[in-house]
Amino acid sequence: MSTMPSRLAELIGKPVNDIDTPALVIDMDAMKRNLARMAEFAKKHNVRWRPHAKLHKSASLAKMQVRAGAVGVCVQKTSEAEIMAAGGVTDIYISNEVIAPAKLARVAALAQKLAAQGGHLAIAVDSTEGVIRLAQAMTEARSATGVATVIDVFVEIDVGQGRCGVEPGAAAVTLVLEIRKHPALRFAGLQAYHGKAQHMRSAHERRDAIAKAVEAVVLTRKLVEAQGITVDLVTGAGTGSLMLEAASGVYGELQAGSFMFMDADYAKNERDPAQPQFEHALFVKTQVVSTHGGHAVCDAGHKSHAIDSGLPLVHAFDTESELEFFNGGDEHGILRPAGDSKRLPGLGRMLWLIPGHCDPTVNLHDFMIGVTGGLRNGTVQRIFRVDARGALT
Amino acid sequence: MSTMPSRLAELIGKPVNDIDTPALVIDMDAMKRNLARMAEFAKKHNVRWRPHAKLHKSASLAKMQVRAGAVGVCVQKTSEAEIMAAGGVTDIYISNEVIAPAKLARVAALAQKLAAQGGHLAIAVDSTEGVIRLAQAMTEARSATGVATVIDVFVEIDVGQGRCGVEPGAAAVTLVLEIRKHPALRFAGLQAYHGKAQHMRSAHERRDAIAKAVEAVVLTRKLVEAQGITVDLVTGAGTGSLMLEAASGVYGELQAGSFMFMDADYAKNERDPAQPQFEHALFVKTQVVSTHGGHAVCDAGHKSHAIDSGLPLVHAFDTESELEFFNGGDEHGILRPAGDSKRLPGLGRMLWLIPGHCDPTVNLHDFMIGVTGGLRNGTVQRIFRVDARGALT
Repeated sequence: MSTMPSRLAELIGKPVNDIDTPALVIDMDAMKRNLARMAEFAKKHNVRWRPHAKLHKSASLAKMQVRAGAVGVCVQKTSEAEIMAAGGVTDIYISNEVIAPAKLARVAALAQKLAAQGGHLAIAVDSTEGVIRLAQAMTEARSATGVATVIDVFVEIDVGQGRCGVEPGAAAVTLVLEIRKHPALRFAGLQAYHGKAQHMRSAHERRDAIAKAVEAVVLTRKLVEAQGITVDLVTGAGTGSLMLEAASGVYGELQAGSFMFMDADYAKNERDPAQPQFEHALFVKTQVVSTHGGHAVCDAGHKSHAIDSGLPLVHAFDTESELEFFNGGDEHGILRPAGDSKRLPGLGRMLWLIPGHCDPTVNLHDFMIGVTGGLRNGTVQRIFRVDARGALT
Repeated sequence: MSTMPSRLAELIGKPVNDIDTPALVIDMDAMKRNLARMAEFAKKHNVRWRPHAKLHKSASLAKMQVRAGAVGVCVQKTSEAEIMAAGGVTDIYISNEVIAPAKLARVAALAQKLAAQGGHLAIAVDSTEGVIRLAQAMTEARSATGVATVIDVFVEIDVGQGRCGVEPGAAAVTLVLEIRKHPALRFAGLQAYHGKAQHMRSAHERRDAIAKAVEAVVLTRKLVEAQGITVDLVTGAGTGSLMLEAASGVYGELQAGSFMFMDADYAKNERDPAQPQFEHALFVKTQVVSTHGGHAVCDAGHKSHAIDSGLPLVHAFDTESELEFFNGGDEHGILRPAGDSKRLPGLGRMLWLIPGHCDPTVNLHDFMIGVTGGLRNGTVQRIFRVDARGALT
């Protein structure tokens, strides 16, 4: 974890203009509106929400989400879970498979630590071997400390993502029965996240994809219940599809994380009228360092923003001409006029980029600079450390 | 800068098998052979070499390069220069434009600091405004400390990259004359890097591109010399084209950095017989965490390796079946059999990925684990901190 450079600490209370570039900036007003909209949406649909902390990797923001009504957070990595716990988050779900015995020992230790605080750890599985190794790690932790802890285990079913998860139906039942053999494991429900549906452009395609996911969940739940076992919770959903899972009557918990910041890729989706209107709240501030040959060059390249879901958009304030961003490599962005405009920004001109994909963009930065009062005339309010930046194991 | 977790420190002397995943691993034997080949190549061609530290961002590796004969290192960012200097590197060239007055003040302070140690700072410019602001910063530093320091300034010309740099010819002369007005600035030569040429697949295309770059340099040098001003040095070249610049008789310094690690993208280039045979020396160690539906899933996604230049390759040891890597998102990779093989790796199986692009891959990690004796049966020898990870300003 990085210590905060004095240059950053000194920014608090200063105007936005003083932020050197490139820098990752949160429009805190927009972020808080997004948070309120999500809380209201979940309440209206009577579902729990457990936002994915892999987006912001910040314990402060996770706690802000819990204060707004979230039941806790999801993470993808054991080390992210450890860092969230160290930062005071007490209800954590590792929505991913962990196989390495060395990591499972850490999972078991964390389950004990959180339980001692009245908190809670959960994890996903998709293999018998994974269940057995997890149970083994929990048993070893019990032997080492003398304390018996139970960890919640979700069976992941593949509802269309084509990545992890067993096939819906009988294979899931086999895993449920395996989990119930081990006293340190509690079968907590089904993990049914459809990642691909998040980025389907048309609302129609997304509706079809989530309808199929719901069918797969219903089928699996029926088979599990036929064994006399209750499925307490179905957890899943992302920002692109959450209105569909929320209305399904099947999903009890939403994992959407991106709604806090909203990236350029999500903004390309045809909007479902039922979706809350989330705003862009995360920006890369950059400035022009070179102007030659009909283009301008800014100081943000793909070491400042992730490009796996496309290049960033240039945020246009009302009175400014539109610009298109082209790939300039690791450290540079190339800007050309877009639309009818022929005007290029001059040397030193500040620009704001909307990242194509927020999660891996945040992971490039050690700190996020929180601004209130807008990007133009606002003030630096807070510095958020990206606590789990680079937490890969 | 991150503190080293005890889990990493305890790895030293342990077998490669003990490295948890995902992790960035250097095959130190291969890296040292690459270093020796580069030193020999530069000697044979009688050119200086100043490898780009934006690749490894490690002061330890920079100093290893200097011990092998490099004159110093290049960096792209002011903060990278500061971090290299703090790590004991004394000859640094910021091969990029710096425009922000706050950053130029840091550049001037660093020039003074290095000069006091008998070291040296240089920087690139491509605008009159940039020269004036740099001179202003140097003057202010002199006023503040009472010490007069001179900074070396290279005029960047655009030799085909289409990014920064003035047009070759008269525009460069204008800048040279501007530099010479300021006593704290010394005109040190021309920066002429052709980034696009590095990734042209055919040797023929690369030869043509660098031949044109050489013409542009020769034209510009002639015009500068017509003013009675010497062009002491032409600096440029990357790993994909260095044999061409080295043989040109015009370039006096090679900036290639990637040769240390070699990524999957460079390996796709048709090999020029004159190019030293560099080996892959940087790998992402990963393991299989899920196997369903005819594919395996490993725990390395694009938070573990950059995908701007394509997905990673799966390193095949002699006796293993070939695998193809598919994008599985931020945290996962999807593996399918390639070629004639139908065999999939089992749960927990360790795999080694060759990143598509090393520079931004290194920037995702806080540490690189140095191994000797090979990836299969080797031993962890050293942990290298990625000192300048996330150094963006």
